[in-house]
Amino acid sequence: MSGKVYLVGAGPGDPELITVKGLKILQRADVVVYDRLISKELLNFCKIEAEKIYVGKNIGDYVIQDEINELLVKKAMENKVVVRLKGGDPYVLGRGEEECLYVISKGIECEVIPGITSAIAVPAYAGIPVTSRIYSASGFTIISGTKAEDKLIDEDYIPRKGTLVILMGLRKIENMVNILIKLRNEREPVAVIENGTTENQRVFTGELKDLVNIVRSNNVTSPAVIVIGEVVKFREYLWKFK
Amino acid sequence: MSGKVYLVGAGPGDPELITVKGLKILQRADVVVYDRLISKELLNFCKIEAEKIYVGKNIGDYVIQDEINELLVKKAMENKVVVRLKGGDPYVLGRGEEECLYVISKGIECEVIPGITSAIAVPAYAGIPVTSRIYSASGFTIISGTKAEDKLIDEDYIPRKGTLVILMGLRKIENMVNILIKLRNEREPVAVIENGTTENQRVFTGELKDLVNIVRSNNVTSPAVIVIGEVVKFREYLWKFK
Repeated sequence: MSGKVYLVGAGPGDPELITVKGLKILQRADVVVYDRLISKELLNFCKIEAEKIYVGKNIGDYVIQDEINELLVKKAMENKVVVRLKGGDPYVLGRGEEECLYVISKGIECEVIPGITSAIAVPAYAGIPVTSRIYSASGFTIISGTKAEDKLIDEDYIPRKGTLVILMGLRKIENMVNILIKLRNEREPVAVIENGTTENQRVFTGELKDLVNIVRSNNVTSPAVIVIGEVVKFREYLWKFK
Repeated sequence: MSGKVYLVGAGPGDPELITVKGLKILQRADVVVYDRLISKELLNFCKIEAEKIYVGKNIGDYVIQDEINELLVKKAMENKVVVRLKGGDPYVLGRGEEECLYVISKGIECEVIPGITSAIAVPAYAGIPVTSRIYSASGFTIISGTKAEDKLIDEDYIPRKGTLVILMGLRKIENMVNILIKLRNEREPVAVIENGTTENQRVFTGELKDLVNIVRSNNVTSPAVIVIGEVVKFREYLWKFK
């Protein structure tokens, strides 16, 4: 007999943005395997005897992904309730599907509990809705900035209009902006939100052509969400930090 | 002195997918103004004396939107805690930004509590991650199907590759598929998920060229989420209804 693995989305930063379902499972966990980006306050809801394992996953860290997969299986094989607590949503650029596939391939049950993705909630907390009829933004695109290399990124993945949200966009920001300026309007409004939904949130706005400068001059660091599109104009009216 | 309006995302159907923050505010509400698509079980968490107002908003119903805006303001002016409980996330194709702007324009405080969007969680519950490194889906696009008229829809909003999720896509499904087949591969895998994350969930899969037929022959009704892209292939491995 073996335990079960739950991939739980912790949400974007504000600990109260975890789901009721996710919190309930966290409270039952024997083992919690958690990422760098989750709110540490969430760990206070675990059982006292729960084993909490930090795996501090960073972008592009392939070796450790294998170790995480093995760890989840090993603990579940010990008949434990294992929570893999991931920032945002497990299936939004989080490699949750790889973890789930691996766990299942070993004959262990795996269940995914969605989380609030930072791609939507971080702009919302900064007063920016990702869609709006007012700006004909009846859709939006979320992409990872980690592949922003002139050869690697496929322009077919980026629509020419509508809201564009970029996660993990800082490391290759210059390549990314070069690609985007070719595809879209360089005067498009942009916002960069650092540590969104937390007390340390910082928000900077400007135009696409100035995005690299905005990031550099303000020393913006990860985690940061970049929003490009007319909807950024809402911030002036809807801004309010909670 | 006036009350306050909270726009709360109820999530995609499963009542436990509301956030902890959203639930806490719901429990404090004096007035709850709720949509057709929210889980009715959530209303059981309200105070006994809370006033629950059904506004049964349907797609494209512009008149009632004005009435909802007025209602939120009227109740808040009576110094009440008003929760506007919306399906999914208030800022994902939900016109939450219009409600928020209106409330603020009347001098009343408005706060947005994000919700789990059906665009991500409904596929997840059906075993379909919206992103995956395995299929080079390092991004995805969410669009509304309500504008799918050959003249109205702007092809610039639809990327040629990557996962595409369509909300409210049934009513103009034929126009939508005609547009998509011109832009993308007609053999792309598709999934249609009716009543996702609930006990009544039904899932159908096939190829883009057969999407209209899939919807018609199975009599798929709203609410339904359509997913287009290679990630649909995950369902075979990750499927599990909870």
